[in-house]
Amino acid sequence: MTLTHLTKHQSDRLGGFRAFADEHLAPLADGFDAEQTLSPEVVALLAERGYLGATVPEALGGAGMPMVEYGLLSEQLGRACQTVRNFVACQDMVALSLARWGTPEQRDRWLGRIVSGEVTAAFALTEPGVGSDAKAVATTATRDGEEIVLRGAKKWISFAQTADLFLVFASLEGQHTAFLVERNTPGLSVEPVRGLMGLRGSLLGRITLDDCRIPSARLLGRAGMGLAFVASNALDLGRYSTAWGAVGLAQACLEESARYAGRRVQYGTEIANHQLVQQMLADMATDTMAARLLCHHAGVSVEQGDPDAVHHTLMAKYRSSTVAVRAADHAVQIHGAQGIGAEAPVQRYYRDAKVLEIIEGTSQIQQTLLSAYAMKAARS
Amino acid sequence: MTLTHLTKHQSDRLGGFRAFADEHLAPLADGFDAEQTLSPEVVALLAERGYLGATVPEALGGAGMPMVEYGLLSEQLGRACQTVRNFVACQDMVALSLARWGTPEQRDRWLGRIVSGEVTAAFALTEPGVGSDAKAVATTATRDGEEIVLRGAKKWISFAQTADLFLVFASLEGQHTAFLVERNTPGLSVEPVRGLMGLRGSLLGRITLDDCRIPSARLLGRAGMGLAFVASNALDLGRYSTAWGAVGLAQACLEESARYAGRRVQYGTEIANHQLVQQMLADMATDTMAARLLCHHAGVSVEQGDPDAVHHTLMAKYRSSTVAVRAADHAVQIHGAQGIGAEAPVQRYYRDAKVLEIIEGTSQIQQTLLSAYAMKAARS
Amino acid sequence: MTLTHLTKHQSDRLGGFRAFADEHLAPLADGFDAEQTLSPEVVALLAERGYLGATVPEALGGAGMPMVEYGLLSEQLGRACQTVRNFVACQDMVALSLARWGTPEQRDRWLGRIVSGEVTAAFALTEPGVGSDAKAVATTATRDGEEIVLRGAKKWISFAQTADLFLVFASLEGQHTAFLVERNTPGLSVEPVRGLMGLRGSLLGRITLDDCRIPSARLLGRAGMGLAFVASNALDLGRYSTAWGAVGLAQACLEESARYAGRRVQYGTEIANHQLVQQMLADMATDTMAARLLCHHAGVSVEQGDPDAVHHTLMAKYRSSTVAVRAADHAVQIHGAQGIGAEAPVQRYYRDAKVLEIIEGTSQIQQTLLSAYAMKAARS
Amino acid sequence: MTLTHLTKHQSDRLGGFRAFADEHLAPLADGFDAEQTLSPEVVALLAERGYLGATVPEALGGAGMPMVEYGLLSEQLGRACQTVRNFVACQDMVALSLARWGTPEQRDRWLGRIVSGEVTAAFALTEPGVGSDAKAVATTATRDGEEIVLRGAKKWISFAQTADLFLVFASLEGQHTAFLVERNTPGLSVEPVRGLMGLRGSLLGRITLDDCRIPSARLLGRAGMGLAFVASNALDLGRYSTAWGAVGLAQACLEESARYAGRRVQYGTEIANHQLVQQMLADMATDTMAARLLCHHAGVSVEQGDPDAVHHTLMAKYRSSTVAVRAADHAVQIHGAQGIGAEAPVQRYYRDAKVLEIIEGTSQIQQTLLSAYAMKAARS
Repeated sequence: MTLTHLTKHQSDRLGGFRAFADEHLAPLADGFDAEQTLSPEVVALLAERGYLGATVPEALGGAGMPMVEYGLLSEQLGRACQTVRNFVACQDMVALSLARWGTPEQRDRWLGRIVSGEVTAAFALTEPGVGSDAKAVATTATRDGEEIVLRGAKKWISFAQTADLFLVFASLEGQHTAFLVERNTPGLSVEPVRGLMGLRGSLLGRITLDDCRIPSARLLGRAGMGLAFVASNALDLGRYSTAWGAVGLAQACLEESARYAGRRVQYGTEIANHQLVQQMLADMATDTMAARLLCHHAGVSVEQGDPDAVHHTLMAKYRSSTVAVRAADHAVQIHGAQGIGAEAPVQRYYRDAKVLEIIEGTSQIQQTLLSAYAMKAARS
Repeated sequence: MTLTHLTKHQSDRLGGFRAFADEHLAPLADGFDAEQTLSPEVVALLAERGYLGATVPEALGGAGMPMVEYGLLSEQLGRACQTVRNFVACQDMVALSLARWGTPEQRDRWLGRIVSGEVTAAFALTEPGVGSDAKAVATTATRDGEEIVLRGAKKWISFAQTADLFLVFASLEGQHTAFLVERNTPGLSVEPVRGLMGLRGSLLGRITLDDCRIPSARLLGRAGMGLAFVASNALDLGRYSTAWGAVGLAQACLEESARYAGRRVQYGTEIANHQLVQQMLADMATDTMAARLLCHHAGVSVEQGDPDAVHHTLMAKYRSSTVAVRAADHAVQIHGAQGIGAEAPVQRYYRDAKVLEIIEGTSQIQQTLLSAYAMKAARS
Repeated sequence: MTLTHLTKHQSDRLGGFRAFADEHLAPLADGFDAEQTLSPEVVALLAERGYLGATVPEALGGAGMPMVEYGLLSEQLGRACQTVRNFVACQDMVALSLARWGTPEQRDRWLGRIVSGEVTAAFALTEPGVGSDAKAVATTATRDGEEIVLRGAKKWISFAQTADLFLVFASLEGQHTAFLVERNTPGLSVEPVRGLMGLRGSLLGRITLDDCRIPSARLLGRAGMGLAFVASNALDLGRYSTAWGAVGLAQACLEESARYAGRRVQYGTEIANHQLVQQMLADMATDTMAARLLCHHAGVSVEQGDPDAVHHTLMAKYRSSTVAVRAADHAVQIHGAQGIGAEAPVQRYYRDAKVLEIIEGTSQIQQTLLSAYAMKAARS
Repeated sequence: MTLTHLTKHQSDRLGGFRAFADEHLAPLADGFDAEQTLSPEVVALLAERGYLGATVPEALGGAGMPMVEYGLLSEQLGRACQTVRNFVACQDMVALSLARWGTPEQRDRWLGRIVSGEVTAAFALTEPGVGSDAKAVATTATRDGEEIVLRGAKKWISFAQTADLFLVFASLEGQHTAFLVERNTPGLSVEPVRGLMGLRGSLLGRITLDDCRIPSARLLGRAGMGLAFVASNALDLGRYSTAWGAVGLAQACLEESARYAGRRVQYGTEIANHQLVQQMLADMATDTMAARLLCHHAGVSVEQGDPDAVHHTLMAKYRSSTVAVRAADHAVQIHGAQGIGAEAPVQRYYRDAKVLEIIEGTSQIQQTLLSAYAMKAARS
């Protein structure tokens, strides 16, 4: 079910994204989940297609992909494999940060290689004691001559196991600040986090920064811009990707369920003829479409420079992720015992969906942010 | 919170609709509810603005209002007063039926007067024993020379108490057929239905057709077109109006709630600062926006001749009405005891919202219809 | 559906309560709702049966009804008529307060007459600016020799329109304190609150205390006991009654729905054969039973002096009221258009149910209180 | 949070069950989940305590455990480890079937060894094409002299990988019939089913019956009693165990969440002080208690021979499993990223909970069954 709003060009692009995801990603998703990894071949393939750093302006070496298109891509990636969607998002969050706030030297050093997939990047904000409350960063950065010394720990960092470049947030003289840290920097070590419930291919890691020294020139933007500018912008993109990815997951649940319900016979008829199954299918279809429209609305808002774009993205992320959780719940239920089995992708969807309600801002955080927006909007 | 998608022209129109509703309708809504009526002054005002039969093509004397614009109007009517929104919809359902299926004589006789508000119209499909299952019509039409004799009863017919013209559905030699019956026709009598929980101004009536004779020329369309063409098309419009109207109701709930939550102090702070109130505000804002996008999507689909337009409208009606019920529930809860009182419009919203989940197809019917659509769409 | 737990004696009592409610109350409920009143005949009847002040110990002239029995009575009252259930609860809240904290003179003066129905009583805690946060009482009490002068206003006070005795809460030298105020006291005036959405027969009033002078001997308990003891205990009883009453309302929804679903034919079969109706019936039955068990558990806890009894009552009130709202929603939906009509009691249930989620503590307040209890219980 | 209803003896027993589960099972649960197995040591331990075949009458060598006690045990097993709870249930389902319908020879051969844990048993009803609709069994049994030949396949059979004895259901001359089949029987083969989402230690298998010959004396009960008596009774017990086990899982979610919420600090305070967390804790506590009461009610009904006992068990299973799913959802959400990690038991609860909504009858099947019960009960 696609959007009537799409232009011919967007529809064509969507067709390409879908075909790519169906052919190259969907067949690998269960494997990435089982083996808890992402293959380098996929990274190369994504780069080849121009899907890495896709939103980076062409002038800076990216694909300059408009936001709605990027959303359509994210839905298709998420429909096939949340790990790949997450990888693309993390890569983009760092690429975008470099494009926006990087010095020419910083851009030259990394941006091209991120777009080409030669360098993979990780966004290192969360800490063991710091989740939703990102302001409370405990990692410190201290100036020491021409160098900066980082001390602290980061946790739940996607693709940390293999990333070449880390965008690390730390407090520099009390100011929230972003830093670019390369993998081989002495003092930086990564411990894999395994056995996750969802997004299992995302190569999560726990990072220790033990007197990790970097040149001062690795500071991104300016001191104090860490949370309010760098992380905010990146998270905005991350939320946008997650939102569309959640729509993709919900759509995958719907498609699998429809397929199964049209084939599985109980009580002498396909279960698609049972009203209680119909109710679940109808809810999945309606809610998935509504979530998709929220995402599309957010994308259009960004493209048009609507000042409410950030809140439209928050709305999209909030609702899409809850819709995905509910769709996955329905999908497993429709599949019955089959839905628990290893062969059924719906059990992967069920595990992945829950993660989407937590990453890039929990539903609870978004409720408090959206309430403030609603209060303001209702007054105007 | 408006849609980024709107053109400048649409935004301007929306502004006009909103101002009209705020100035002329909202102040009357509680009165219509309490007195169980709709004033003729409002009908005149609506006609004056070109809001009656608005979707009728200009060539036939209507405003030729495009569907998205009509949706924006319906939201604003519904935000102010569901009874007015319902009146406009019923008038339009009959106008549209005449415009589409009427003979030149039929159009000449009534269409202009419907648009001008001189004639008010009622859509008489439902019967005491026939709700969702419209095919099972028990009212019969029998040919008798140049006349047709109608026998049966209709129930829950909006504006029947005052309507000048009834679009009546009956079985003519086993074929579902539509007829135009004027109020003064002998054999037609209307008994008011009062004391309803919601849409209390809608002047509902129970119609008895007791050997009610009409000229054969009052048959609308052809025999057998009653359900599949005439009623289907009209209900499609009715659902579209109801869907947008439900968005308007939800938006009204949000606005009232935000106003109250920003003012009411408990535990030393405005209740808008309590997370449990914030959650309700955030859900209302997000769900209302999602429902509005579903409605807008349906409108665009109709305008573009998308073959899925009917299903997009079903989705919009289904979700908007459930969103309205939930928003009204939150709104009353946020108002606490005040929300039960006569001065609070939210208690009217609460009663009206529930009706929206039933009229123009219950949520249950829509679940079964949308399931069929989802099955088809998922296969393609 | 009754509880297996009941003793023979309890079952017999329940049978009596049910028969009384079916015969004497149910037939009047729609009338009380429509006319916004409660008839004195019903008060007399309740007194005659020993249903007023029923929990007051026999030694003090009450029926000494055990808590579980009182719960069974409250369910049956609530199943038939929430206004009657509310009346009994208010009468009991004041009676219980007198029985617990009254001086012999206070008891002598009023307790017998409350039990006999000669005196009707109102519980006057809520104020225009004071809802959930009862500590913030703005009404003041000032000592003036042997008298106390009350100044302030109370709102949303059930049965204030006709009450002979008011249990008024005010701040006496900064201490939350309870007072007994007779209707004819100069300075006390009552303005009716009409047009409520639910519990419409409850004769609500807004009370003004304008230099209202009462003898010091009308102070109930001691200064400072107003909230922590008198109101707390009374509200505890009120919540218990409301909880059981909500179960009664949900049960009434279930019974009406089952009756209708077994009779109404659509698509060639009773709608009870449609799975989407079955789902609603099953949820109503299961949730009503669960809510009843929570209420019964609270009653047993009180009878056994379980220190958690207060929290078991909170749980019961919280869940029963949400169950009632959901059951009423299902009941209206099952009835379709009929569910909106004046003849269908389900539309009254729908309006009354929502009130139960607000009175005696909103669901939100109960969530915060129950969380504290859950935290404590999980630690032990 | 325990039930006020329990006798001193029941409370003591509960204390013992809880201590056993905390000491011996909880520490192993994550391992069973990760390694997809159940250790023989645990089987021995359960037998030693008298927890296998516990409901078998003492006269037949069992513990003769009353149903409420058995429920309390099941809750504690489920609180610690769903795989162990499932193992005990399967063992009991076969033991109970033998006790009720077995010939003296059949009982002598297996019952004692099931109780002692020497023989482990599997309940083999489900087939690849037969889930909810158990009547549609495709496995056939053909008489051949003194032997019976079984042909067909069974799927999703818990503990099939290691079971010594299978209770197999097949159609014997068109009659649904139960058979006892030992593991070493030629023609019976078991293929492990691995990689499940939940209940991962339950050693599921797919059974092939390829001209599997058993003596006629292995028929349990009589021909035609397979579904209506043997399976029905066993499933009744299985549902009862699952229901209580779901309560245990929900309680575990609550306890883990309360622990975490009291410790985790965000925004300068323990998250237990955030209202949105409080809401989840309150709902978990209330719903878990309500589900426990439904289970207890079912147990009391069985003990008292209440004719509605089967339906009370259905209600308990239906609501407990949905409560468990919701509690696990809340628990993961409260834990945030930590809730996805391998160290957090809540992610196991999340995966296990979903299975409980499917096994021993899906929620959908139970809705249709409970609707019939509600219709009957509402009429009486």
